[in-house]
Amino acid sequence: MTPTTTERTDFVARLRASFPLDRVLTEPGDLERYSHDDAEWAPFELPLAVVLPESAEEVSDAVRAAAEAGVRVVARGSGTGLSGGANAVADSIVVSLERMTAVTEIDVAERFAVAQAGVINDVLRSTVAAHGLWYPPDPASSAISTIGGNVATNAGGICCVKYGVTRDYVLGLTAVLADGSIVRLGRRTAKGVVGYDLTHLLVGSEGTLAIVTDVTVRLLPLAGREERAVVGSFASLQDAGVAVAAITAAGIIPSALEIVDSTCLRAVDEWQKLGLPRDVDTMLLAKVDEPGALGDAAAARVAGLMAEAGAVGVEQAAEPAEVARLFLARRLAYPALERLGPVLTEDVCVPRGAVPEMLARIQAAARENQVTIANIAHAGDGNLHPLIIAPEGDDSAKARAKTAFDRIVADCLALGGTVTGEHGVGLLKLPGAAEELGPRVLDLHRAVKHALDPRGTLNPGKAFPA
Amino acid sequence: MTPTTTERTDFVARLRASFPLDRVLTEPGDLERYSHDDAEWAPFELPLAVVLPESAEEVSDAVRAAAEAGVRVVARGSGTGLSGGANAVADSIVVSLERMTAVTEIDVAERFAVAQAGVINDVLRSTVAAHGLWYPPDPASSAISTIGGNVATNAGGICCVKYGVTRDYVLGLTAVLADGSIVRLGRRTAKGVVGYDLTHLLVGSEGTLAIVTDVTVRLLPLAGREERAVVGSFASLQDAGVAVAAITAAGIIPSALEIVDSTCLRAVDEWQKLGLPRDVDTMLLAKVDEPGALGDAAAARVAGLMAEAGAVGVEQAAEPAEVARLFLARRLAYPALERLGPVLTEDVCVPRGAVPEMLARIQAAARENQVTIANIAHAGDGNLHPLIIAPEGDDSAKARAKTAFDRIVADCLALGGTVTGEHGVGLLKLPGAAEELGPRVLDLHRAVKHALDPRGTLNPGKAFPA
Repeated sequence: MTPTTTERTDFVARLRASFPLDRVLTEPGDLERYSHDDAEWAPFELPLAVVLPESAEEVSDAVRAAAEAGVRVVARGSGTGLSGGANAVADSIVVSLERMTAVTEIDVAERFAVAQAGVINDVLRSTVAAHGLWYPPDPASSAISTIGGNVATNAGGICCVKYGVTRDYVLGLTAVLADGSIVRLGRRTAKGVVGYDLTHLLVGSEGTLAIVTDVTVRLLPLAGREERAVVGSFASLQDAGVAVAAITAAGIIPSALEIVDSTCLRAVDEWQKLGLPRDVDTMLLAKVDEPGALGDAAAARVAGLMAEAGAVGVEQAAEPAEVARLFLARRLAYPALERLGPVLTEDVCVPRGAVPEMLARIQAAARENQVTIANIAHAGDGNLHPLIIAPEGDDSAKARAKTAFDRIVADCLALGGTVTGEHGVGLLKLPGAAEELGPRVLDLHRAVKHALDPRGTLNPGKAFPA
Repeated sequence: MTPTTTERTDFVARLRASFPLDRVLTEPGDLERYSHDDAEWAPFELPLAVVLPESAEEVSDAVRAAAEAGVRVVARGSGTGLSGGANAVADSIVVSLERMTAVTEIDVAERFAVAQAGVINDVLRSTVAAHGLWYPPDPASSAISTIGGNVATNAGGICCVKYGVTRDYVLGLTAVLADGSIVRLGRRTAKGVVGYDLTHLLVGSEGTLAIVTDVTVRLLPLAGREERAVVGSFASLQDAGVAVAAITAAGIIPSALEIVDSTCLRAVDEWQKLGLPRDVDTMLLAKVDEPGALGDAAAARVAGLMAEAGAVGVEQAAEPAEVARLFLARRLAYPALERLGPVLTEDVCVPRGAVPEMLARIQAAARENQVTIANIAHAGDGNLHPLIIAPEGDDSAKARAKTAFDRIVADCLALGGTVTGEHGVGLLKLPGAAEELGPRVLDLHRAVKHALDPRGTLNPGKAFPA
């Protein structure tokens, strides 16, 4: 089925004939730029071409042409993925949805919006906010990632601990199937149970079952929340982990509960000169968002539990600017780390009670493999992001980092966790996914993939081990 | 592939040999009793036998034996379904999960529980409540329906308007596949995105893709809510509909927003002598559950909006007993109606703003077809339950009821709704589902069904038009 060199050339020529010239990219620089997402060390190939469609119909045209030519199709949002899910494969085209940026409908009374796949998460949020509505899912990449990419990976974020993930807000979608046909799935009503839940099957399927071209998202009222921040400083990751366990065991559901460790704090401070105290090992950053007296009580309770868990200091804020200031270290942690070298981002998720133990095991993995591992964590979800740093060009460090990565995955499974909390399997987590899912469930994945994409046109080799 | 008479006899004999005698039922009375659910007028056959397994392994044994013999398998909870989803088909066995009634695990810190499929919804709720935890989904059948049945139909309920449906609380499950293999799907962590979302694909699949034997459900803290009831009396369904639209447009998310019409109110009053005022045409029953001053404010706001919409009276309550009293008419409406004759229960769901128009169209359908249609509605979700009553034995009334049913389905689709908000397609909604889903999406259903159940063993002919 692999196309010959002539067939490839013919295919690209046909593609260029059927799209405006500036929307089929074939320059080497463009091919390189679109060939991979933000995952370090995940393999990729150069695509045959990059197509920039402006409608579902144009996506369909590209998919149909590719399917006929035996060429694979890799869909891409803005390439902020951290697992290699959008990396080009051999004999593929990349279909970038970056030009499909319209929010085509906002229904205030029914509280939903329809956004094309290329709409940036923050743009969707601000657009609906102007109508008094709130789209909660807030991946750290919200300023640059697209709603289509968020849907493809079922993206999480900071407020998920209280408000859920992308899948929880997807009511329906338009998708281009592997044969090029365009389908509408899901609904616009508050409830509905007609047929199989194919809408949510596509969410998180990493472009392997269909290419999502627009999404109908459920919204919440913007009003009624008042954010308060409570930030505790701890002498160790473990102490912060104990505070996390205490807060969740108390039945408090914060709207954010994040850990930032000393490595991240130092990196942020060296970069931004925030004057963070050098004796703080770990910061635990919480938000509560109940209004009025309820919020005051919740914030006081969180602060009390942090103190009981041994916090060396606790700060509170209710003013939006002050809340933002307290969370600044969290927001800057990832870019600050990236300045230190290629960052291999882990994404394990363990039961909340296992957070202290998992953090200890991550530290052990760093020690034993002599690599630097920084930690940011959606601690309230048990979703940890150990950031493994290996200096550019240091092959030995890279090998040790890989060993640490594998060990962390194994430890997470041993603690009853999942190998990926929110980033997706992509290419990086294929071995872990195989272990977590087991052979019979993998059979089911293959059967479902074959049912929707019998020729293996869409993003083959991603999302689950084939 | 249809088994011969001898093959059927042999199969039942094998089944009886491999299960304790009292757990394979073949008496005609038993076969009749297990042959259908609570849907009026949905067709059913007598099963060859009814099997009462006590473990996933025993479910697997029954499925495997049936698959080998070319016999179909219809899974059943307690048969409270309203669409015929659990009705026996030709050459089938019914696998009743009624003996699998253990809540096998409650994890207070992680806030989840594991319940076998036969656990009654209210039992699950009270069991976890004893640990300070709350399982929100509350179908009207909660006293008699099983969690397995709730999962098979993705059951809704009264509090869904704020807290979501069954699918939103399913973290993972154990299921027996069409070949008898047992798989575990999903997770126990707060988040997770490994592989396809097969867990939620099975939720709502009406036993056509697998038989769920236990369910891991996400729980909320029980504390922190304080229910207040606000009940408005209206002179017409339309006035109540206007109040619904006003409440939702105000960005208030009540924890219940239910309509009960005059036909229901009269039926309840004649049965239970509650002394309901005879001049009330429609009651709109709301709950809000924010604690303290927030709840007071929300209740006052709802009451004010009801008055503005023309309520002839508004009552409020905060004491649990008083709240329950105000909601009594809602709770008794369905059984009161059933006393009047066979009730064909509709389940259309329209955009919230279309509730007044849909209610008007339902009244028109009743008038034009000279049938009695009572209305209860999860109004806040746009999910309406017109209850079409035809006196026993009156074939002409039955035919007119059927015409009204079809008209309501068509009207709902014309208003951008879905043919089933929470009861499922079963058998009753197959034509409506065909129209709503369209040919290409139906292809996808067939492909997914074939991928998971290539021989058509599990509940064939249900959930979508084959």
